[in-house]
Amino acid sequence: MIRTLALVLTLALAAPLFAASSEPVPVVMDQVIDAALADSSAYALLEELCDVAGPRLSGSANYELAVEWALERMTDAGLANVRREPVTVPHWVRGDESAWLLEPHPSRLTMIGLGGSVGTPPGGIEADVLVVSDFDELEARADEAAGRFVLFDAPWDGYGRTVRYRTQGAIAAARHGAVGSLIRSVTPARDCTPHTGVMSYDEGDTIPRIPAAALAVEDAARLHRQFDRGLPVRVRLEMEAKWHDDVLSSNVVGELPGRESPEEIVVVSGHFDSWDAGCGAHDDGAGCVIAMEATALLHRMGLQPRRTIRVVLFADEEMTQTGGKAYAADHADELANHVAAIESDSGAFPPRGFTVSGDSLSIAKLAELAAPLESMGASSVSAGWGGVDISFLAKAGVPLIGHRTDNEGYFDYHHGPSDTIDKVDPADLQRNVAVVAALLWALAESESPLR
Amino acid sequence: MIRTLALVLTLALAAPLFAASSEPVPVVMDQVIDAALADSSAYALLEELCDVAGPRLSGSANYELAVEWALERMTDAGLANVRREPVTVPHWVRGDESAWLLEPHPSRLTMIGLGGSVGTPPGGIEADVLVVSDFDELEARADEAAGRFVLFDAPWDGYGRTVRYRTQGAIAAARHGAVGSLIRSVTPARDCTPHTGVMSYDEGDTIPRIPAAALAVEDAARLHRQFDRGLPVRVRLEMEAKWHDDVLSSNVVGELPGRESPEEIVVVSGHFDSWDAGCGAHDDGAGCVIAMEATALLHRMGLQPRRTIRVVLFADEEMTQTGGKAYAADHADELANHVAAIESDSGAFPPRGFTVSGDSLSIAKLAELAAPLESMGASSVSAGWGGVDISFLAKAGVPLIGHRTDNEGYFDYHHGPSDTIDKVDPADLQRNVAVVAALLWALAESESPLR
Repeated sequence: MIRTLALVLTLALAAPLFAASSEPVPVVMDQVIDAALADSSAYALLEELCDVAGPRLSGSANYELAVEWALERMTDAGLANVRREPVTVPHWVRGDESAWLLEPHPSRLTMIGLGGSVGTPPGGIEADVLVVSDFDELEARADEAAGRFVLFDAPWDGYGRTVRYRTQGAIAAARHGAVGSLIRSVTPARDCTPHTGVMSYDEGDTIPRIPAAALAVEDAARLHRQFDRGLPVRVRLEMEAKWHDDVLSSNVVGELPGRESPEEIVVVSGHFDSWDAGCGAHDDGAGCVIAMEATALLHRMGLQPRRTIRVVLFADEEMTQTGGKAYAADHADELANHVAAIESDSGAFPPRGFTVSGDSLSIAKLAELAAPLESMGASSVSAGWGGVDISFLAKAGVPLIGHRTDNEGYFDYHHGPSDTIDKVDPADLQRNVAVVAALLWALAESESPLR
Repeated sequence: MIRTLALVLTLALAAPLFAASSEPVPVVMDQVIDAALADSSAYALLEELCDVAGPRLSGSANYELAVEWALERMTDAGLANVRREPVTVPHWVRGDESAWLLEPHPSRLTMIGLGGSVGTPPGGIEADVLVVSDFDELEARADEAAGRFVLFDAPWDGYGRTVRYRTQGAIAAARHGAVGSLIRSVTPARDCTPHTGVMSYDEGDTIPRIPAAALAVEDAARLHRQFDRGLPVRVRLEMEAKWHDDVLSSNVVGELPGRESPEEIVVVSGHFDSWDAGCGAHDDGAGCVIAMEATALLHRMGLQPRRTIRVVLFADEEMTQTGGKAYAADHADELANHVAAIESDSGAFPPRGFTVSGDSLSIAKLAELAAPLESMGASSVSAGWGGVDISFLAKAGVPLIGHRTDNEGYFDYHHGPSDTIDKVDPADLQRNVAVVAALLWALAESESPLR
């Protein structure tokens, strides 16, 4: 019995090694999926990243801890050409911060400063609050904004529409003389957590730069009700947030070199920075681990594709995208040989498929390549966004592929404190590894690439 | 058409006025339930309490705002003998507070100080962390505790068992020389919110009083994993928490005087203080509003029961129960005439029934009285706990009735920032008003009372 079991195990473990690259691509893709689903490495890697480096704000010490970790883990996994690629990144430091409701009753507010915001003077800013539901209401009540905080209590209406208050709120509020901009956190969740993310100032710098922070949805709603009741609503906001000089940081790169055409490259990527609430487990530790582990899995299976697979973990997606820009600039002379770039940045939810920005031929070809992923429910291919970091490869004509998941719950965690490892389902994470690894094989091995 | 509608409305609105108290108790109970379910006053009251007074920590200015509000609303509702009853309460002030993970990577921890904790010296306490899962593990590793924080990362195992780490953790940790006690928040939720609650020190005062705080479940888990990995785990805890002199506060009382035996009293109550995360919407703003509104509803219906119904909103349940003690002491000479006391403190979830501490005759009698609540799914009566505040009436032989709800989700919010008005379902709240109002009628009107 024990001998039989041992034999079965030996065969099972050895099987992937027989997956010679001479077999038809869809056959190998199935083998890759089976091997990935029998594995559980990805969750352990992601947990380790969260524990060792924690949140990985652009320019932070934590980000550098993460870089060290990734170099080590990619090397352990047997990837080649593991390296840093230098990127000069912005360095915004949050520091300590707090917001207190002073009237109509004292209580601490659940808040987080928005990324890139200026700080307040020491001791904070104390002011009454004008609460509005949207930009239109602010315009209608513009004469009430001067000397006040403006709170945009904009109801969740999907990320794309609601995020405007985070990115544009401080400009709109300051235009009318507000001393600070507050938003309702950009999330559909109701768990009294604050969600951060990047904000922006007037580029011409003619409109004053005022501090900007997000309140928990519940606190924004409370202030809104108090305001509507005609109660005095007075807040003190204190933020140490500060811009420091840019720092030298890096993208992290590792490769599975191509067997026949190593100069032809398939990029698989995620962004390695995160916000500093939570650990950036879904956003985008997961994407980075999926890219690393999908490539490492092919290598462990003894599969060396025709073309080179290049893992790129991008710096500074969340703030100014210097990682993506640096990669496009530094690799300009080989972009014509980039046959595709995948970015995984939609969390470790069940895989669904891919969106692709490219001509219709590329889309049709990708749909054909992804067809064997139907068994994983992940063969959906449609025209769409590839990813923030790889978007800088668009003008070189690189087909850009966004790895997509069923991430309805994503924005419950997104940029908030509960984006932690326990929110990641190990099996779902591994399913994403399976799907991306199989597609990588298809892209790097098929005789006719996407372009 | 309009005239017909007007007639129907007139009849519908007038109907409760025909509910003469001479009708059989179960018939009137049904009328009370119908009237309560056709009403929606309770949610508006609770929302107003949350907006006007906010969180209502014992001894705080907010608690006094709440007292003013309750006096006004009970008077508006036509209750009689609306008054403050003086209670000297403890006055613990949280102040500012924070916890930072320093190693293995810097990041802010989501924390809240435990109620009654001493503060840290200015600048905080910086120390390594010993992480244990339970008291046994602390005892086994007691020689590692000196000079460190002890973090009790005790998994949720029901409130009664898990809360021991909150109430006893600081004593256990300090016994072995720890400089601070940290716990995993006492909640089954995974939303990265911190949950507070009262803690205690050695009464003999031979064991040092060390600061005590709760971390979000996710942060406690992270520190535990880091500790198990052998990484350095170092934390800075800073708490301004401070005990001030006791202050004069009050229970709030209002009555619906009895028709025949006004000296016989049915108490209906909740606790009016709350923790200062969230607004104490479920805990126990809801219980107070249920008590107020159930009584006000009977009055609006023109129902004057045989006995007096007395609404009592107790001060200081969360800290030292001086409100309940003061009531028992100040009303000692009329407790023999208290035919029952109800406390509602299980949130505004769907009503289920009642637990009662009293002799078996009282229990059987209550079951009989509560039988008409079957249509509301709320006729369950079993032996059990009445409530913290009314427990001080036990030795006078008052039958103590705990109003119970299907509150499986209660501890997601309990003592945490998301115990806010939006977590209360208006219809569920009104169902609780219906059930309590109907039972009040039964208790205050039935010829043979519980005792």
